[in-house]
Amino acid sequence: MIGVFDSGIGGLTIVKELFKTLQGYNILYFGDTARTPYGTKGKDTIIEYSIRNTEFLIKQGAKIIVIACNTASSVASEIIKEKFGVPVFEVITPAVQKAILVSKKKRIGIIGTRATINSKAYEEKINEAISDVKVFSNPCPLLVPLVEEGWIKNRETRMIVKKYIFPLKTKQIDTLILACTHYPILKDIIKKKVGKNVEVVDSAVSLALLLKEFLIKNSEVEKTLLKTDSHIFFVSDITQQFQKSANMILKRQVNLVLGNNKI
Amino acid sequence: MIGVFDSGIGGLTIVKELFKTLQGYNILYFGDTARTPYGTKGKDTIIEYSIRNTEFLIKQGAKIIVIACNTASSVASEIIKEKFGVPVFEVITPAVQKAILVSKKKRIGIIGTRATINSKAYEEKINEAISDVKVFSNPCPLLVPLVEEGWIKNRETRMIVKKYIFPLKTKQIDTLILACTHYPILKDIIKKKVGKNVEVVDSAVSLALLLKEFLIKNSEVEKTLLKTDSHIFFVSDITQQFQKSANMILKRQVNLVLGNNKI
Repeated sequence: MIGVFDSGIGGLTIVKELFKTLQGYNILYFGDTARTPYGTKGKDTIIEYSIRNTEFLIKQGAKIIVIACNTASSVASEIIKEKFGVPVFEVITPAVQKAILVSKKKRIGIIGTRATINSKAYEEKINEAISDVKVFSNPCPLLVPLVEEGWIKNRETRMIVKKYIFPLKTKQIDTLILACTHYPILKDIIKKKVGKNVEVVDSAVSLALLLKEFLIKNSEVEKTLLKTDSHIFFVSDITQQFQKSANMILKRQVNLVLGNNKI
Repeated sequence: MIGVFDSGIGGLTIVKELFKTLQGYNILYFGDTARTPYGTKGKDTIIEYSIRNTEFLIKQGAKIIVIACNTASSVASEIIKEKFGVPVFEVITPAVQKAILVSKKKRIGIIGTRATINSKAYEEKINEAISDVKVFSNPCPLLVPLVEEGWIKNRETRMIVKKYIFPLKTKQIDTLILACTHYPILKDIIKKKVGKNVEVVDSAVSLALLLKEFLIKNSEVEKTLLKTDSHIFFVSDITQQFQKSANMILKRQVNLVLGNNKI
């Protein structure tokens, strides 16, 4: 199985893309809804949670780990790669590759949670890949609760997005990375506020393609994956709202199962 | 020591009032910042967290427990009272007593987190105390993140408060209970939006008076309390933002200490 974890239900935007690109592979999802959100929390706490999530997925049969959470990818992906003997994919590398490809002026903006932005993980990866690039970032901590409340088209959401985007717009970025799995749900508003000339990049599509390519090249791993169309969605806490958001993202009734919920 | 716990730093609004009314008593605070917020989470998860927080405070020397979190008070206070052999105070009873006292038309509104409102704990306590009362409630899940971001005077916050308050205003309430320890920080905006004729009630002052009265009547408990002016503020996760919010609420530099942070 392909194990995917996120701090909550936002990572389902990644799963949606995996469904499109990697049809037929079993997905095992874990959303840490009992401890969500990660983005406002400290580094050590996020690392501990990420290790526990990975252990749970591997125990359940995951042969590949996808960290479908930007905060956990920024803070914990190196440790997860070192600690566990399975291929680990995170959401930063594919988004950075895509951004570098599309940015002509080499002025790249990043929006994400406070923990993601503070980690400077995106900035470092961009600077490693190309030189003479200007990176500007702004944390947008209110966007996750707005999305989780389903305030997708509200006037207040548009105003808050505008406020968060404005400082980046003045820096004349030509590419904007959505460094949080919740943000693609606000893509239309974000595109409108940042302007037509700015390319908006998220990691879902690029990540799915990267994973597909990996499976073609690594048949010994590919062989170990289950290939039925039944997927399991574990969460550490179930509420009506989490259920509603999960259904909204995947656009179908998702059967959330309680798991890994010992405190 | 008087042990106080909350899902995060919002409970410090209660501590602030305890400082005023119960000068000289040692306060031992625990804010579960690694798992905050509780208000969007499920009942069983909140109960488990509350039990663990109480165990931690008692182990650290607390002789009285104050549940300074409306969500935990609504969902877990009965269980905490049964499980532990110490006096337990919660924030619902004092707010309800005050509301009943000031409401003339017996039309009471309640705003709180989704978990608090869904629990119907306030509604039940009001109905137990008086008859012929009409209770109207509305969950306001975005107010906690807005306060934690320090968006106290922003236009967006005013608009969101207005939207949440409007359905209660149309019910012609004469009293509004702030059933979340974060909301007193938005009291000015809430008062403005709900109108002059509505009495806005929070539990902090009434709770502190109730506790004072209890200590006068129960000298055997009072004797066991430490009486120095040094207080300890434990949190399960420390970030700059939590530190900033804590300082903002208590209007001084608060020394946050990491504790009870095993996941």
